[in-house]
Amino acid sequence: MPHAPCFASDNYAGVHPMVMAALAAANSGPAPAYGTDELSQTARLRFKEVLGENAEAFFVFLGTAANVLCLQAMTRPHHAVLCAGTAHINVDECGAPERHLGSKLFCVDTPEGKLTPGLLRPFLHHLGNEHHNQPRVVSITQATELGTVYSVDEIRSLAAFAHDHGLLLHMDGSRLGNAAVALGCGLREMTANAGVDALSFGGTKNGLMFGEAVVFFRPELAQDFPFIRKQGMQLCSKMRFIAAQFLALLEGDLWRENAAQANAMARLLAERVAGIPGVRVTQQPQTNAVFAQLAPAVIARLQARFAFYVWDVEQSVVRWMTSFATTGAEVEQFARAVREEALRG
Amino acid sequence: MPHAPCFASDNYAGVHPMVMAALAAANSGPAPAYGTDELSQTARLRFKEVLGENAEAFFVFLGTAANVLCLQAMTRPHHAVLCAGTAHINVDECGAPERHLGSKLFCVDTPEGKLTPGLLRPFLHHLGNEHHNQPRVVSITQATELGTVYSVDEIRSLAAFAHDHGLLLHMDGSRLGNAAVALGCGLREMTANAGVDALSFGGTKNGLMFGEAVVFFRPELAQDFPFIRKQGMQLCSKMRFIAAQFLALLEGDLWRENAAQANAMARLLAERVAGIPGVRVTQQPQTNAVFAQLAPAVIARLQARFAFYVWDVEQSVVRWMTSFATTGAEVEQFARAVREEALRG
Amino acid sequence: MPHAPCFASDNYAGVHPMVMAALAAANSGPAPAYGTDELSQTARLRFKEVLGENAEAFFVFLGTAANVLCLQAMTRPHHAVLCAGTAHINVDECGAPERHLGSKLFCVDTPEGKLTPGLLRPFLHHLGNEHHNQPRVVSITQATELGTVYSVDEIRSLAAFAHDHGLLLHMDGSRLGNAAVALGCGLREMTANAGVDALSFGGTKNGLMFGEAVVFFRPELAQDFPFIRKQGMQLCSKMRFIAAQFLALLEGDLWRENAAQANAMARLLAERVAGIPGVRVTQQPQTNAVFAQLAPAVIARLQARFAFYVWDVEQSVVRWMTSFATTGAEVEQFARAVREEALRG
Amino acid sequence: MPHAPCFASDNYAGVHPMVMAALAAANSGPAPAYGTDELSQTARLRFKEVLGENAEAFFVFLGTAANVLCLQAMTRPHHAVLCAGTAHINVDECGAPERHLGSKLFCVDTPEGKLTPGLLRPFLHHLGNEHHNQPRVVSITQATELGTVYSVDEIRSLAAFAHDHGLLLHMDGSRLGNAAVALGCGLREMTANAGVDALSFGGTKNGLMFGEAVVFFRPELAQDFPFIRKQGMQLCSKMRFIAAQFLALLEGDLWRENAAQANAMARLLAERVAGIPGVRVTQQPQTNAVFAQLAPAVIARLQARFAFYVWDVEQSVVRWMTSFATTGAEVEQFARAVREEALRG
Repeated sequence: MPHAPCFASDNYAGVHPMVMAALAAANSGPAPAYGTDELSQTARLRFKEVLGENAEAFFVFLGTAANVLCLQAMTRPHHAVLCAGTAHINVDECGAPERHLGSKLFCVDTPEGKLTPGLLRPFLHHLGNEHHNQPRVVSITQATELGTVYSVDEIRSLAAFAHDHGLLLHMDGSRLGNAAVALGCGLREMTANAGVDALSFGGTKNGLMFGEAVVFFRPELAQDFPFIRKQGMQLCSKMRFIAAQFLALLEGDLWRENAAQANAMARLLAERVAGIPGVRVTQQPQTNAVFAQLAPAVIARLQARFAFYVWDVEQSVVRWMTSFATTGAEVEQFARAVREEALRG
Repeated sequence: MPHAPCFASDNYAGVHPMVMAALAAANSGPAPAYGTDELSQTARLRFKEVLGENAEAFFVFLGTAANVLCLQAMTRPHHAVLCAGTAHINVDECGAPERHLGSKLFCVDTPEGKLTPGLLRPFLHHLGNEHHNQPRVVSITQATELGTVYSVDEIRSLAAFAHDHGLLLHMDGSRLGNAAVALGCGLREMTANAGVDALSFGGTKNGLMFGEAVVFFRPELAQDFPFIRKQGMQLCSKMRFIAAQFLALLEGDLWRENAAQANAMARLLAERVAGIPGVRVTQQPQTNAVFAQLAPAVIARLQARFAFYVWDVEQSVVRWMTSFATTGAEVEQFARAVREEALRG
Repeated sequence: MPHAPCFASDNYAGVHPMVMAALAAANSGPAPAYGTDELSQTARLRFKEVLGENAEAFFVFLGTAANVLCLQAMTRPHHAVLCAGTAHINVDECGAPERHLGSKLFCVDTPEGKLTPGLLRPFLHHLGNEHHNQPRVVSITQATELGTVYSVDEIRSLAAFAHDHGLLLHMDGSRLGNAAVALGCGLREMTANAGVDALSFGGTKNGLMFGEAVVFFRPELAQDFPFIRKQGMQLCSKMRFIAAQFLALLEGDLWRENAAQANAMARLLAERVAGIPGVRVTQQPQTNAVFAQLAPAVIARLQARFAFYVWDVEQSVVRWMTSFATTGAEVEQFARAVREEALRG
Repeated sequence: MPHAPCFASDNYAGVHPMVMAALAAANSGPAPAYGTDELSQTARLRFKEVLGENAEAFFVFLGTAANVLCLQAMTRPHHAVLCAGTAHINVDECGAPERHLGSKLFCVDTPEGKLTPGLLRPFLHHLGNEHHNQPRVVSITQATELGTVYSVDEIRSLAAFAHDHGLLLHMDGSRLGNAAVALGCGLREMTANAGVDALSFGGTKNGLMFGEAVVFFRPELAQDFPFIRKQGMQLCSKMRFIAAQFLALLEGDLWRENAAQANAMARLLAERVAGIPGVRVTQQPQTNAVFAQLAPAVIARLQARFAFYVWDVEQSVVRWMTSFATTGAEVEQFARAVREEALRG
């Protein structure tokens, strides 16, 4: 029996078959632990090919850790991280950044989840004043939690702003592939070449079973990271099984195919529901999320049939999220159901 | 081409085929994230069947985290954890316990890695004195880092000692199965029934790809653990893939078969090298490690052919570790090599 | 030569002569360290007389520590503290709360520095959700950083709200005396009797050389505090010298005289500058701070002659702060200067 | 009525009269807070005169914080601090170093509280290995907790060892003056000139009411310290009152007089009790502590009359500590009592 289409989150999806095959292939006999095996070394080199010679990649288990440990390598506890108020590191990590960094997040109100130099400038007023955390990192999410995307120029200008003021630029790329597809650009263009200093490179939401990469573009940030990762409880013993997944993801641009499918399905869904009376798509999807406003009763009936989240209770806005595994047929089936329920009012 | 036999560590082994099959089977369509899926719920119930109704199991990615977060649920920063000086939490975690608990480990010198009430008593002198961390948890490793095993009675007496003094008993069970096989007893008998309050239940070293379980036997310890796990960067989004592995491990006592194989191979290896001139097995293996004394030159030549670690440079003692994947043929091949090299002197 | 009047902060003031005399008197021969001396015991009992039998007072060195360690006794790292965005713990502690608690502050926008149940309610949405810090403490500042004061009824209603939702109420009373004078009420009425669970009782800003008290009104909060204080680097060895100061402050209501003088001087200053063209007192002072709007050029000339801070650069608002040591003559002298400079334009 | 002589600890003593006078003198009118006042600036310069141009002094409230924050400036959480097992930072701080540094202390067994390069060398085995905290600081106590003293040459050789291996040398100088007097050398000779990188300069045990100084001899260590101190809850608002005390202590070498008196009184006491039957002075006092072995019954009767601590219950060894305030008459009175009680047996 086929499962019901699911638009709850891209981490509700399973594992891409080619990733699964890579896991099986990696399971041949013993291999050195903790990343000293061949697959892990190959995968680290592959990241250099993709992101540039300066890219030093370290594998960790999950996205929370990728972000937190990456930021830990960039800060000391009296520093502050500047991020959008809607950033995942602020909203959805049960305070892991504050707990592990010992720092403060300076949260910026943004129109659609995106920072700009102008929005950041007021947070620099207290530089040098011992009574206040010192801004040290600007952290942006690409694509953002609201499904929007920074252009390469926007990233460049944020990097320039950060570096001009002695700050570093971090990119939370848990949906990096979706952003690259949206921009039609390469991964390197959007990261290393745009001035990003450190990157959380997402894997789980783009078809892996588990595994993310922390990538540093400055050697001084990478230097102590093996210790930070181990003490941070993220050194995988059978690391070849993360490495193999990333090799699969980067092989033949599987990452791009997966992200492109997810994005296309969101666009398709937005199109299919666009004309339905009582359904308002609040913004054209740039990546793999559709935000739409519906009557509460319609939402309730739809949720009885399909898994998805209400994004804003007061505005009656839902988030429909697609993944690499979402099919056109599923979108059509879901869009029909939206129409049915909306027309019932 | 077959790989060379490997006696470096049980985490050099790959994934048991039945675990691999369970992973593939779990990859069918979407499933709710963060442990709200069916497999995860089934797996948690399975732990209750195995360890008793009070057992509340939480999945995490790796052993360091299982130990650290489990201890975090049991302590506040002014507490202390009493453990053997040789304990993994003291020696091999890059200080993760101190970093995350904020506490001190009180390290006990032990003859063979095992605590006793008598060894612990002197550490209670400063109870109530604000200048000193307050002992709160006794942490034992079962089987120990030296391959020895606590008897059920020894665990009972440590639990009684702990509880008599208002302390809790934690068991680091990264090789729990190997201990159970060595004692010929069940998992519940050695844990819940013996007075253990919290358990790190190992998976990775017994045939999983990744994944450990934190098990609490007291509801007050489990209560805040969802938050501790999330903030501790160990909440797996696609958790069904840890759950599925544990279900496979607990199905038909695969855990016992795996551990029994590992233990048997260590015994076999000890037998095979026992009579070789210049090779002294320092103690009969109780679980899956053989400790042996050889001439440095012999060690060097053997290491050029096979992967294993020197345990004590000064005493010229090596550790040969077996796993579920070690075969009798591999042991024989290795034992022959030991003989060859030893006879060359 | 007399010093210029100073309106920068109440911690620019020196030590009240009676406090100084108490310090000298306490310096007679040896005394047990760490608070086991007679003066310290007497002072702790004095706090019970003043604040009620449940009041357990602990001395620390400074206000940052009083707030942070008090909150630490009330929380675990996955909790959150709800406070006004303008709260000292949020703005002026270089992130000490986040660093030491490991928690998040949930900062509330307020009209004039004061929380209300209505403002707090939206922050309770995620109770029980492991992805979010769990609200545990409501922290209010009395008097607030903006010089406003909570009425006893307002405190009561916040306490009721907190307790109804399983939260605790903390009061940062670094200017507690000024608030009591403003309300014309007693210290107990405003704290223990109004439902406050824990109090940072300020000393330094009301005439002490150094020293604050952490006061718990629930025994379970006080229980571990000796350890939290010691580990928190706040256990004073020669503690009699903090105790003696507090005994002086609480003797014959010196605390009230000091606070009343400070408040009266702020009122006087507000009156004297009220009619000056180009000077707008933004709100009637309730405690010991006058906020006034002046032309930037006037501010600059005044700052060349007297110490005080600009509160809001963009609004061109200054803060003039009075203390127990401020005299009527100083206020008159300063008000004349304000008039002179304002008239010059 | 005169108080009984007290040999419990040098922090049972009160405040030296000249320090008290300096406190009174500092209390004239308002002064800028947080160390921007004249006295604080003068005091910092005075430290440069005493310890050399490179000396950057920062005032904190107490010794625990001086050590912990100083070490925090020198380390990151994955580092380790090497110290004697008997070090105050290991034994008597309720785990404050582990809590605030997030690091591990590597504790060295020593014959009499003193580290040597030979004792340290084995702790360097795991340099570069991510599974182990990385040694970063050697911390020595001068004078040690056992009353012994490092010679200048011994300090030099420890500094050379540390620097040769990329480590830093920290000196806990809570009894620095006593050591300098014992060696007959200057403060600079024993610290900056001997290769010490950072120093906790004790005040409280040598006659201050409160206050210690953290002194860095390398500018890169001092750079972030204002933030570390503030976030570490040690930025004193009325800092002139710490500065004034240190100016008094350093004026006319009051520090030396105080320490010399304490040391002399310990020597005198050791002499006076030397010949008493049943009393064995375990080692000649180098500084201001006398360790002596007596019968338990004698100890009990003496403790009923005078305050002092039993150092080692099993060996029946007591510690008698003298201070700047100890007088010859007090020593004679106490020595007579020792004789009386010892002769009663």
